[in-house]
Amino acid sequence: MVRLGIIGFGYWGPNIVRNFNGIEGCRVTRICDKNEESLRRANKIYPEIEKVSDCKAVISAGDIDAVAVITPVSTHFELARRALENGKHVFVEKPFTATSQQAEELIELAERKNLKIMVDHTFLFTGAVRKIKQLVDEDVIGKVYYYDSTRVNLGLFQHDVNVIWDLAPHDISVMDYVIADRPEAVLATGANHFSDHEYVAYVTVYFPDHIIAHLNVNWLSPVKVRTTLLGGEKKMLVWNDINPDEKIKVYDKGVKIQNKEGVYDLLVSYRSGDMWAPKVEQTEALRLEAEYFVKCIKEDQTPFNDGNAGHRVVKILEAAEESIKQRGKLVYL
Amino acid sequence: MVRLGIIGFGYWGPNIVRNFNGIEGCRVTRICDKNEESLRRANKIYPEIEKVSDCKAVISAGDIDAVAVITPVSTHFELARRALENGKHVFVEKPFTATSQQAEELIELAERKNLKIMVDHTFLFTGAVRKIKQLVDEDVIGKVYYYDSTRVNLGLFQHDVNVIWDLAPHDISVMDYVIADRPEAVLATGANHFSDHEYVAYVTVYFPDHIIAHLNVNWLSPVKVRTTLLGGEKKMLVWNDINPDEKIKVYDKGVKIQNKEGVYDLLVSYRSGDMWAPKVEQTEALRLEAEYFVKCIKEDQTPFNDGNAGHRVVKILEAAEESIKQRGKLVYL
Amino acid sequence: MVRLGIIGFGYWGPNIVRNFNGIEGCRVTRICDKNEESLRRANKIYPEIEKVSDCKAVISAGDIDAVAVITPVSTHFELARRALENGKHVFVEKPFTATSQQAEELIELAERKNLKIMVDHTFLFTGAVRKIKQLVDEDVIGKVYYYDSTRVNLGLFQHDVNVIWDLAPHDISVMDYVIADRPEAVLATGANHFSDHEYVAYVTVYFPDHIIAHLNVNWLSPVKVRTTLLGGEKKMLVWNDINPDEKIKVYDKGVKIQNKEGVYDLLVSYRSGDMWAPKVEQTEALRLEAEYFVKCIKEDQTPFNDGNAGHRVVKILEAAEESIKQRGKLVYL
Amino acid sequence: MVRLGIIGFGYWGPNIVRNFNGIEGCRVTRICDKNEESLRRANKIYPEIEKVSDCKAVISAGDIDAVAVITPVSTHFELARRALENGKHVFVEKPFTATSQQAEELIELAERKNLKIMVDHTFLFTGAVRKIKQLVDEDVIGKVYYYDSTRVNLGLFQHDVNVIWDLAPHDISVMDYVIADRPEAVLATGANHFSDHEYVAYVTVYFPDHIIAHLNVNWLSPVKVRTTLLGGEKKMLVWNDINPDEKIKVYDKGVKIQNKEGVYDLLVSYRSGDMWAPKVEQTEALRLEAEYFVKCIKEDQTPFNDGNAGHRVVKILEAAEESIKQRGKLVYL
Repeated sequence: MVRLGIIGFGYWGPNIVRNFNGIEGCRVTRICDKNEESLRRANKIYPEIEKVSDCKAVISAGDIDAVAVITPVSTHFELARRALENGKHVFVEKPFTATSQQAEELIELAERKNLKIMVDHTFLFTGAVRKIKQLVDEDVIGKVYYYDSTRVNLGLFQHDVNVIWDLAPHDISVMDYVIADRPEAVLATGANHFSDHEYVAYVTVYFPDHIIAHLNVNWLSPVKVRTTLLGGEKKMLVWNDINPDEKIKVYDKGVKIQNKEGVYDLLVSYRSGDMWAPKVEQTEALRLEAEYFVKCIKEDQTPFNDGNAGHRVVKILEAAEESIKQRGKLVYL
Repeated sequence: MVRLGIIGFGYWGPNIVRNFNGIEGCRVTRICDKNEESLRRANKIYPEIEKVSDCKAVISAGDIDAVAVITPVSTHFELARRALENGKHVFVEKPFTATSQQAEELIELAERKNLKIMVDHTFLFTGAVRKIKQLVDEDVIGKVYYYDSTRVNLGLFQHDVNVIWDLAPHDISVMDYVIADRPEAVLATGANHFSDHEYVAYVTVYFPDHIIAHLNVNWLSPVKVRTTLLGGEKKMLVWNDINPDEKIKVYDKGVKIQNKEGVYDLLVSYRSGDMWAPKVEQTEALRLEAEYFVKCIKEDQTPFNDGNAGHRVVKILEAAEESIKQRGKLVYL
Repeated sequence: MVRLGIIGFGYWGPNIVRNFNGIEGCRVTRICDKNEESLRRANKIYPEIEKVSDCKAVISAGDIDAVAVITPVSTHFELARRALENGKHVFVEKPFTATSQQAEELIELAERKNLKIMVDHTFLFTGAVRKIKQLVDEDVIGKVYYYDSTRVNLGLFQHDVNVIWDLAPHDISVMDYVIADRPEAVLATGANHFSDHEYVAYVTVYFPDHIIAHLNVNWLSPVKVRTTLLGGEKKMLVWNDINPDEKIKVYDKGVKIQNKEGVYDLLVSYRSGDMWAPKVEQTEALRLEAEYFVKCIKEDQTPFNDGNAGHRVVKILEAAEESIKQRGKLVYL
Repeated sequence: MVRLGIIGFGYWGPNIVRNFNGIEGCRVTRICDKNEESLRRANKIYPEIEKVSDCKAVISAGDIDAVAVITPVSTHFELARRALENGKHVFVEKPFTATSQQAEELIELAERKNLKIMVDHTFLFTGAVRKIKQLVDEDVIGKVYYYDSTRVNLGLFQHDVNVIWDLAPHDISVMDYVIADRPEAVLATGANHFSDHEYVAYVTVYFPDHIIAHLNVNWLSPVKVRTTLLGGEKKMLVWNDINPDEKIKVYDKGVKIQNKEGVYDLLVSYRSGDMWAPKVEQTEALRLEAEYFVKCIKEDQTPFNDGNAGHRVVKILEAAEESIKQRGKLVYL
């Protein structure tokens, strides 16, 4: 039985408690929040779980095996570090840490202590992303040429981070999961009228061999868009996360380009065939992730969304931040 | 009566002839193409118009007042220059010229000769763009914060230019028309697997006062998208050029952000009201543009889509090209 | 304080409890269900509310003012009758009763006892329907010519009623709310392959003065559709209940038809102007309805969705059932 | 070489001439129209084809093998009869004739003279309908349960027929093509405010074995809809003719219903799998139909869209007309 303590019962915390509490082999034994109102809410839903306001009662408790850190990113490092030092596995809300150096320290610490880190990249456990990963792994898509995502809507303007840190972690974690290669460099442009934090941003990620990814994130869009195009050698794919029934469409479309010998011209042939929308599993992503965390602990298995995955995402966020502050300077990773 | 000679009867030429031929005060008197097959096609549709294969018969003819140059961009400068030198007004297919220097020479020449240049930015004459321009001019939108366009589909890969020169002129001309300020700098990223010419590109245009524009152009998309978001202070707008009935949607949505005195926090309030899809004029854009060209000649009026407008578009294309070849270097205009 | 007892804690009951429990001036004091599993579920969510398995403990309790009957339609009459006879106001799930005669008896009984009946036509409290009603009442739409709704999806096949009794009550209650006139006759066609109960049905409702309504309901559709067209003299309206953001679109479209004097021909002129999507209130419909029920009791006010409204809907369901069993016989109301 | 004479150069005639003129083995040798303006238009596009205003010059000409009758339906019978009597094959615009008796006479006459009749059910030659037919014939869909089409838009109100005769022939011809069984009875409801001709109509067609078809046609809709649902035992299909890229979607969805022995209850199991949008051929339907007409003449083959197909469509139109005038009376075929 994994005894889990939760730190942070704000917006996302209740989902964490509900999902971890519902799975076999795991019990949420303590909920911690500095905010009294949050604890009152927790008490109403989970009267049977102990509530505390001091995180020490979770981090250094003898009767807790793992800690879920569901607090603002600026506090992740300190809380996770202390939990690891006290021998707890950690489940950390995304983005993993505020800097890549913090991520490296936590990874090193966890390895030394032989503990698990899981970063809550929830999207990787959705039916849609699992299906995309499968299609790429089974070589249905072929070599991935580009990854182009748009994640825009009206609000919520964050006070402490820009739109990249708020919205892009989702897309970067999926991109990192789906594209096997490691990115070389990052570049971001964007704008702001309202504060120091950009409300709109465009992030380009360069991979080796002419592979490219691009993210369009925006807090000031009149419409909500959650669309990713994936261009592949064999098939192309559109993931529209807003469509309730046909989230993924796979197109038998593409080009074949031959350089004619001794000639300047290209020979381009276009292919346009059927479209196919595979059924996508509906199970709640966070439930699957919670089960996976418990399984990784029990079977001493390294999660694919471990500290290293979290670190890779933070590296890109950090680089994008550096780039956008210098009007799109190219930042090598 | 404006007597018009047309050079180039390939893909776009027939539309030019059809529209100019149908308006009052103008007559297409000569069609020129080096390609015999094109001339045969022209002969079938317009047996009554004279066909020639040597452009001199148009450029230096005594019985022609204006020349429409509907040829590949690499030939625009030379043909337009000779036409202007021979005292003809010119109507030039977009993009205006292959370099901004060529554009400057033509503008200077036309001014000296007191002749008109019109660049065929057809989109500016569509009902949709005219409506957007009106909404901005009448201050319905308020200050424009950002312009974000996506123009992607499968094909056609061009042999002589990249996707920026092929698809972006449309968006740049609209952006230039709608945003009053002049851009400061351009940055472009993109990729290619198939030739020297990028098939996908992302162009950021920086304007003064935190205004930003972004263009997403792609020849290798499984779906066709023609969508532009325009974020304004008072209203936000979505222009979906594929929607046959509701091309423009105006959203009464926005944010109001106040910096609370002496406090770090922002006070953000969101507004979300009605949506409104104004009726959009259906008249063929090219017909309106043709009439406008004739009117400008007759009334000695400078078109708003004159050589200078063409020049501004070419400047941005040129800068984007320079930027993309250096992995997103910032290029000041 | 209205003390409410709930009978039936199956699919819809929990929503009833949640909404009535959350409003001022009302307290849910007892939950009744014959099914033990349902009571266990109720106990988990509402440990503080008393649970009973015998409906007498609700219907004839001295400490209860009103009873919500949230059970299968076949039991509505008996439960509501006994509650009314015991001096309780009743809130009855739709459809009101299994026959129009039952409805008439309940109405008569409530009048005699000076008690309120409210029929749970939840849709009438949605932001969308309230907006439609307002647009009709304020004469924005003008005279309503037709009402055409489609409510189709896959499942759930009911065992005891056909698709008309399952899906059409929603549309009939809205139609009844929006069209001022009273219907004259009903006709229904449909089919079945699987049991005695039709899975697909098409219901025509004739109103005076050439007004017509049509309902398309289907349990065996590959796609979910919830669309109603409303054709009016001044405007036409589309209500798409699946669209999260633009549920209602009002079109400035129409025809004007003049019979030319002494001539056979019609003179038809078409009007096609702007489209407008008014903002639709997001408050949960059931919450508003619950508040309205409490208000009607407290202020001795007759709800617009009273027994008579429920009766009118049942009359049409009854007539449609009679018609469909006779292959579309016209049934006068 | 089939020498074809065309009678009627109004709205649809030019398409007929263009397509028949462009195919091998056929030449349009004469165009006939009573209207001088139509002949002038014909002369402008086809100066080389002979124009006549008297239909005798087509119907009884010695140098013509086949006649295309592209005139209002009220004239079809007389023109086709005279053409057949003069030994010409006939291609008749839909609907075939104004009454089923006229259709029967023409069929009998053509048989006696050993001549071909083809009725212009153009939709049967579209890529979409050919794909649907293939999916039904290859038993991908399984037994067809229902056919449910919606064909609505604003205008054009016809002066001489109601909306059923105007819009429903398309759907009835497709339904007749796709469903192997023959319909038993027809019922139609509808309304009118403006003239004797209904502007909105709902047609139910009963087939044996609980199969049903339903058509929703409307001249007064604010939006254009062209959607058909086809419910089958193995698969369900949506044909959206407005969608440019994904006209047909095949859903692996359905129900399996078992009557449990000796029990009242049904056992219903739902299946919901992938969706698939097969590529649909883009060739112009009328071109294929024209080629098919010529082929049927040359190879003495009976077209599937022969007089009998036209007759079946007219029978249903006639029955629907009789039914709607009697408020939905059931009319047996």
